[in-house]
Amino acid sequence: MSNTEMDVEDPKRAAVLVTAVGVFGRYGFQKTSMEAVARAAGISRPGLYLMFPNKEQLYRATMQGVLERAQRAMEVHLADRSLSFDAGVVAALDALMGPYIDTPLARDLNELLENSEPRLGSMFHDYQERARATLSAHIAATAPPGLLHADLTGHDVMDLLFSAALTWKSTSATRDEFRDRIRRSLQLIHRPAG
Amino acid sequence: MSNTEMDVEDPKRAAVLVTAVGVFGRYGFQKTSMEAVARAAGISRPGLYLMFPNKEQLYRATMQGVLERAQRAMEVHLADRSLSFDAGVVAALDALMGPYIDTPLARDLNELLENSEPRLGSMFHDYQERARATLSAHIAATAPPGLLHADLTGHDVMDLLFSAALTWKSTSATRDEFRDRIRRSLQLIHRPAG
Repeated sequence: MSNTEMDVEDPKRAAVLVTAVGVFGRYGFQKTSMEAVARAAGISRPGLYLMFPNKEQLYRATMQGVLERAQRAMEVHLADRSLSFDAGVVAALDALMGPYIDTPLARDLNELLENSEPRLGSMFHDYQERARATLSAHIAATAPPGLLHADLTGHDVMDLLFSAALTWKSTSATRDEFRDRIRRSLQLIHRPAG
Repeated sequence: MSNTEMDVEDPKRAAVLVTAVGVFGRYGFQKTSMEAVARAAGISRPGLYLMFPNKEQLYRATMQGVLERAQRAMEVHLADRSLSFDAGVVAALDALMGPYIDTPLARDLNELLENSEPRLGSMFHDYQERARATLSAHIAATAPPGLLHADLTGHDVMDLLFSAALTWKSTSATRDEFRDRIRRSLQLIHRPAG
């Protein structure tokens, strides 16, 4: 059983990780103390150390939890057959990147994720690659007739939307604006058959 | 006469600014000395101080020169009537962002520009807005029939391409790859009339 699976199966540990997102997001890695996370989570400091031997490991587990939940939320939307192709792609990118847009805390968290390479290694990059592969395969498998052809693949459509969305995550004032920009892009590349 | 116009008309000053790009790009703002720039430009240190009273002002003028040249190069490509619509847009974005891709020095310069807000204020952002407006107007005026309609404007096409290109500027291994990604995106949104 991997560590990730254990996180999912231990609700107390999972609750601490969700609480820690807010604390790290607000104060950053340096200024966050184990004491502050324990207090916010309503457990004792020794109790927290029993789960995580140091702040570094708590931080890694917290960020992995954030990224893992986003990846799964994306997969749920992509598997939802009640959504149209366009609506599914919008919902998937919104599940993946939308949580970093609406509030100052969400933006702080985004900052933290994008600039934590020294501390998280390739974790953020690896999750991005996984999300790109998931979305690419989904588009290749479910694109309406006429959207793709021999030389323009699901990967091309994914690369365009994903790359633009990464910029829009930082430049959209609201999550609605973010979703709207993706929706309009899909309209541009996905015209009704002429 | 504005400072910018004076830069253009004083070839000695312009040559110093072009030299300074390489020095700041390689060593960053902190580790670059006026002495090093003077030496690289083949002028005396007092001579450099006659042109720029301090390193801060030399830096601002250097970065403004970089951004101004990129904007003008973009405008030249957009005005070139011998290019197809797609080729013109690829050339314009390549002129604007391509110079930050190919070499380690180019990437360092990109880092410097994107992270100099405390030192350059809104300069980088302002140039981006200007380039977006230029490209948006060009697309609205020259888009082939069928690309735009009432609800999908030149601004939408620009926003999609420009935002994706900003990401690709950082994630493309070569300038050729960068251009190819833009070219393929244009093929996706600009199908031959069906």
